[in-house]
Amino acid sequence: MKAELISVGTEILLGNIVNTNAAYLSKQCASLGINVYAQSVVGDNDKRLGTLFKDAMSRSDVVILTGGLGPTEDDLTKETVCECMDVPLVRDVKAEENMVNILKGLSYTPSHNNYKQALVPKDSIILYNHNGTAPGAIIEKNGFTAILLPGPPIEMTAMFEEYVIPYLRSKTNDVLYSYTIKECGIGESLLETMLLDIIDNQTNPTVATYAKTSCSEVRITAKADSFEKAQNLVKPIAEEVIKRLGDNVYSTDEKENIEDALVRLLRKNNLTISVAESCTGGLTCSKIVNVGGASEVFKYGFITYANEAKMKLLGVSKDTLEKYTAVSEKTAREMACGAIKESGADVAVSITGYAGPYDSEDEPKGLVFIGCTNGKDTFCRQFRFNGNRQKIRESASVMALNMARLMIIQYEMEN
Amino acid sequence: MKAELISVGTEILLGNIVNTNAAYLSKQCASLGINVYAQSVVGDNDKRLGTLFKDAMSRSDVVILTGGLGPTEDDLTKETVCECMDVPLVRDVKAEENMVNILKGLSYTPSHNNYKQALVPKDSIILYNHNGTAPGAIIEKNGFTAILLPGPPIEMTAMFEEYVIPYLRSKTNDVLYSYTIKECGIGESLLETMLLDIIDNQTNPTVATYAKTSCSEVRITAKADSFEKAQNLVKPIAEEVIKRLGDNVYSTDEKENIEDALVRLLRKNNLTISVAESCTGGLTCSKIVNVGGASEVFKYGFITYANEAKMKLLGVSKDTLEKYTAVSEKTAREMACGAIKESGADVAVSITGYAGPYDSEDEPKGLVFIGCTNGKDTFCRQFRFNGNRQKIRESASVMALNMARLMIIQYEMEN
Repeated sequence: MKAELISVGTEILLGNIVNTNAAYLSKQCASLGINVYAQSVVGDNDKRLGTLFKDAMSRSDVVILTGGLGPTEDDLTKETVCECMDVPLVRDVKAEENMVNILKGLSYTPSHNNYKQALVPKDSIILYNHNGTAPGAIIEKNGFTAILLPGPPIEMTAMFEEYVIPYLRSKTNDVLYSYTIKECGIGESLLETMLLDIIDNQTNPTVATYAKTSCSEVRITAKADSFEKAQNLVKPIAEEVIKRLGDNVYSTDEKENIEDALVRLLRKNNLTISVAESCTGGLTCSKIVNVGGASEVFKYGFITYANEAKMKLLGVSKDTLEKYTAVSEKTAREMACGAIKESGADVAVSITGYAGPYDSEDEPKGLVFIGCTNGKDTFCRQFRFNGNRQKIRESASVMALNMARLMIIQYEMEN
Repeated sequence: MKAELISVGTEILLGNIVNTNAAYLSKQCASLGINVYAQSVVGDNDKRLGTLFKDAMSRSDVVILTGGLGPTEDDLTKETVCECMDVPLVRDVKAEENMVNILKGLSYTPSHNNYKQALVPKDSIILYNHNGTAPGAIIEKNGFTAILLPGPPIEMTAMFEEYVIPYLRSKTNDVLYSYTIKECGIGESLLETMLLDIIDNQTNPTVATYAKTSCSEVRITAKADSFEKAQNLVKPIAEEVIKRLGDNVYSTDEKENIEDALVRLLRKNNLTISVAESCTGGLTCSKIVNVGGASEVFKYGFITYANEAKMKLLGVSKDTLEKYTAVSEKTAREMACGAIKESGADVAVSITGYAGPYDSEDEPKGLVFIGCTNGKDTFCRQFRFNGNRQKIRESASVMALNMARLMIIQYEMEN
């Protein structure tokens, strides 16, 4: 199956946003065994889009379009595609209801344009949008398929995963099976060295590593004529990789990130966690809370950005702050101990560091201390992260979650 | 001048890398007044690239290509473009020397392929590469220009800034000037209705709206033969838009988001803020802390996910929680008042709600109360946000930052 991607939006052609949708969709298509022939970007211009879409229709089996489904006058993707494919637009009660409900929640009154937005291509598969007002659609005609998705990544990815993946999977013969092993704490370069013989000796399955912020993934992908056969090709390689990476492996579920793995482990062991954050300022708590069911394991977080807050909320001693500064092993330890004491949690983790933007001898940018305690043993690790403020805070947060995860694995072994 | 961008690389079509080059080049072209007609991505395939390039030649004045200048066999951009334009490749001593020197620094011996890499299009402007072995080129023929740049962003951007910007500037007369007005609280659809007469009546400048999570942007773009003239075309329209949107406008700086605007306002007025978060769980604090210089205005945050934490850290009364539940106007108000009292801040904002994933009559997903206090007056607003857990938390966080911003504007008016 030959596919191509068209992203619609003048804001992409002006360079105001990076086209991450195309990268996401390309990756998804690759994992479905679908060959992406081209990616194109066109502005909010019906003539140009029409020309491009007709070209794409003539050479591809599937065209996936993102963007231009909004309520405004320059949102013309649906209208243009329907005209090219000679499919009329019709009212859909459910899409209209969804739009009205969403706007009601925001205390907005639907305008004429919003009703235009809720129109759908006749006889298409309608992709209801749980995150916005624009419905998507899969339009099939004469062996050609157009898939219309909204532009905002949150809406697009949710819709793709709910509707489009099962749809495309039902249309392809070759089965591509991917297995992802996620690790934290090794780093991509060392990881590749550890797995070099496996990576080099495989053609089916293929083995590839991908770097994420402070984590990496190993993806093992096999192609076969059945799901079972593909799975059997992957299995022995996956086992070997997991053996080599040990406790650094935090998940083999593609959708699970480090905070999901941590919350899963906490729930399994009936443990609770508390977090004390300085330079990360709530990022770590927020990651934990973003996991559904976090309320069972997380009750309190302390955002102690100022020294005064570290003393008042966590009982960090004035002496420590004066003698060692707020960015020190001793402060990180006292923050973790304060958090466990104040919250009554089973495990607490703390983060203090310099995230920048300034960098000086006194306050070296990227220097971060992470403390972790179970009330009995307290550990602290020093890091020197690279990147801008956001990247440093993200790295620190991921490492803190991983340290807490390793502490719970230790607990599991002892109990 | 009409330009288009072609990115060459199978790795982009596989989704292994995000095409940031296209965003960078688009932005640069926009600021040079060059109209980018389209962005395309094609794999390492000379036939497909040839077809695409010939199409681009027929409709654009300039085509900027990135990638495919490497030493390997599938790097074919230079060869394909030269064939399409009927320009031979020739040796260039300086490009060859540069390649040999760079490889020597890495202790590599140049291979046959590396010498191929140092060939250049005859009579072209050669763009020497200080960061890699691939030279770029500007090829002019019959009024059409092809610009070849390497794929790695560091090499590409350095080469673009050194050679291509001065070259393009010497070829263009037009300047494009964009002005962005950012609002929170109106919604894209109503926003467009409020501005419809302006949007419809303008061709230069053009006026367009863009939706972000719980915020929107209005972009006014003018084209003229000087920067000053373009600015003068934009000015009266921008003033009218700002007048209509009033306090909902939080910034006219393209790089500023809602938390930047809030921190800027707090700093200007020498005020501090504290945040009490339940369902957003640190997201709001984290946004504030991500702004450089946040330490002047933000000292404390309280992540009170459990009722117990709301009582202990913020002094929310047991009665309130039992009678009205944790997701209620009364709890939001007590959380905000507790945060301002415990932190000694000038303004405090609180967020409590149901972010899902579950949705029931008792706990309606997306129901959020946001409280805001200056110690004297306390406000609370009820919202019903849509979307998944992440989207609901993001919307709530943006609205909370906006409510705090409006409270400070109120303060400014009174003082």
